[in-house]
Amino acid sequence: MNNKASTPGPLAGVRVIDLSGVVVGPVATLLMGEQGAEIIKVEPPGGDLMRKLGGRGIEPAMAPKFLHLNRNKKSIQLDLKKADDKAILLNLIEGADVLVSNMRPRALDKLGLSWSDLSLRNPRLVHCTITGFATGGPYEGTPAYDTIIQGAAGVAACTNAAHGEPLFAPFVLADHVVGLIAAQAVTAALFARSISGRGQAVEVPMFENMAAFVLCEHLGQRTFGEGGAFGDPRILNPDARPLKTQDGYICVSANTDVQARGFFSAIGRPELADDARFISVEARLENVNAYFEVRAQAVQRRTTSEWLALFAAHDVPAMQVNLFEDLIADPQLIASGTLVTEPGRAPMLGVRHANRYSHSGVPDAVFAPRLDQHGEEIRAALKGKGG
Amino acid sequence: MNNKASTPGPLAGVRVIDLSGVVVGPVATLLMGEQGAEIIKVEPPGGDLMRKLGGRGIEPAMAPKFLHLNRNKKSIQLDLKKADDKAILLNLIEGADVLVSNMRPRALDKLGLSWSDLSLRNPRLVHCTITGFATGGPYEGTPAYDTIIQGAAGVAACTNAAHGEPLFAPFVLADHVVGLIAAQAVTAALFARSISGRGQAVEVPMFENMAAFVLCEHLGQRTFGEGGAFGDPRILNPDARPLKTQDGYICVSANTDVQARGFFSAIGRPELADDARFISVEARLENVNAYFEVRAQAVQRRTTSEWLALFAAHDVPAMQVNLFEDLIADPQLIASGTLVTEPGRAPMLGVRHANRYSHSGVPDAVFAPRLDQHGEEIRAALKGKGG
Repeated sequence: MNNKASTPGPLAGVRVIDLSGVVVGPVATLLMGEQGAEIIKVEPPGGDLMRKLGGRGIEPAMAPKFLHLNRNKKSIQLDLKKADDKAILLNLIEGADVLVSNMRPRALDKLGLSWSDLSLRNPRLVHCTITGFATGGPYEGTPAYDTIIQGAAGVAACTNAAHGEPLFAPFVLADHVVGLIAAQAVTAALFARSISGRGQAVEVPMFENMAAFVLCEHLGQRTFGEGGAFGDPRILNPDARPLKTQDGYICVSANTDVQARGFFSAIGRPELADDARFISVEARLENVNAYFEVRAQAVQRRTTSEWLALFAAHDVPAMQVNLFEDLIADPQLIASGTLVTEPGRAPMLGVRHANRYSHSGVPDAVFAPRLDQHGEEIRAALKGKGG
Repeated sequence: MNNKASTPGPLAGVRVIDLSGVVVGPVATLLMGEQGAEIIKVEPPGGDLMRKLGGRGIEPAMAPKFLHLNRNKKSIQLDLKKADDKAILLNLIEGADVLVSNMRPRALDKLGLSWSDLSLRNPRLVHCTITGFATGGPYEGTPAYDTIIQGAAGVAACTNAAHGEPLFAPFVLADHVVGLIAAQAVTAALFARSISGRGQAVEVPMFENMAAFVLCEHLGQRTFGEGGAFGDPRILNPDARPLKTQDGYICVSANTDVQARGFFSAIGRPELADDARFISVEARLENVNAYFEVRAQAVQRRTTSEWLALFAAHDVPAMQVNLFEDLIADPQLIASGTLVTEPGRAPMLGVRHANRYSHSGVPDAVFAPRLDQHGEEIRAALKGKGG
């Protein structure tokens, strides 16, 4: 199944006005743009902070992280303090399907951009606000950035439980995850509109969504009352990590009884499959420390490629750890078109939408815009409509 | 803005047949079920592996992680090796909008459950297959589990770059993220169907999606050619972590010039705002080691609550690190209804959908099903239709 180039994508025909910046909103609209929605990125004077914060570009204000998060978008710079620019934004919203912002609701209100204001002009609008903390709660309006959410919502609590100190995940995790959740919520509201004919306001709070993510994973036995311990012991175990081989690292996953039996055979300890500690899913969970220790000690004794062959022969899921250099040479990422050399501004590595749609395709990728690159075109189109 | 209880949700009226298990598929259908879709979880004899793998339940095969990932779903046990059960599945699919599976495409083919088989019976079906590795690439069909994808797709490479050893994120990250991506892709295909009248096959590959996630973050200067270094230095910096105070940990985010100025004032070093190393976004990025070191050293000198007051007074985004115990007592999570005591089977903590929809609401939460809890009801309904 291949994506057909130049076909419109499942969200073709959807027009999104994107007032968001940095990561969380741009991740949401990146996904929608890759699915064929038209994304109009409205940037304040000076542009999205990520243009500079995301590394050194080969031209100013075109940081690599900005490029990767803003493909397939158009840029217009608007100063919302100016009446003319504000009028342009309102005209754009009138003709749009979706508005995405990560301003605080009070700031949106002040600008006359709340759902109650805008739904009068455009009742079909899906009005998505990504907030730090859900409105109505005691933290409403508290400023939120990725690391603040990682710390407050329990991501750092997980590393604390696993490794004895609170750390962040080594990527903009909360922004990235909540951006995906926002894209899905907007898409669901568009689906609902296809039935009701009506848009609506959607609030996507970062803190609550990340806390729900963490709690589903790690409420553990505490789910059932104060006597129970937090945490999934299979995940927080110190040996729940890539295993060191003679020459690198490997990941092995043997969860079912059949896989565990295969694993014990592959390491030359078939008798362990009948050991009471390891004989069932429940037994291995109960004795997870011993199980993981057996794994870690056995795997040290051969090279990664020896293990990959052995595990494959025993139907045990396993794969090498890829470091960054490995990733950009990975034959699967290249064959699937996930990693490409950008046409037009070579040499530059680009990332592409990974999903395949049998009948919708995905649009050809378009390079991230320079600040206000499409300002003139967008303004002219509005005038053409008498806007 | 509050969700109205007992209202249908943005995906009301959508019927999903869920053949998936463990985490990635259940995360996708959890989200859709919370938005009002009817989720029929088809379980093999013995049930979803997560019923046992996800911790000790207060009754057998009802592990806490299973409960948190399978709210708002119905369960029917079907043995697809038996003709009768297979016929029930096919009848269910005929009346459904969506099929979600995480079987390998070859296994689906063998069961007669590929898109080309099923689209003849139900051309409006959205047929979502979550694969480990995209079909057509050299790793096609390789078995994939969360940790294997974390290792292969670069999550462990990120911790290696940040901390000098490859580690997994301390949660089922790849499954969880790709589950969200799958939910969005299915929802987008439902939206496309609202226009075209036609369903389609959607493939959501785990490896490619997670690699894209990692590469957007950390291609860094390597984006522009072999001379450039991988990695976002703001994120991989050893001091990019919650900062130790006198009595705990705090997260501080001062990215804009105004925030940085506020930060330097709050720590009693206002002169640093005019230091050439710290005077702009670009300068602080270039001197991120020095900037983060100043931060880490300053913050040690007061308690968390002193800092929170000081940073608030200087408009610097900051928040305490919450550990697991803090999370379940957090007033925001309780006020927003994200964390609840389950009705019916108390005492039990439950997690709830965090997004708010002004006009769709979300359905009342329903406890995760026992294995085959709805088998009889679902079979009877099919017979009623002459199925």
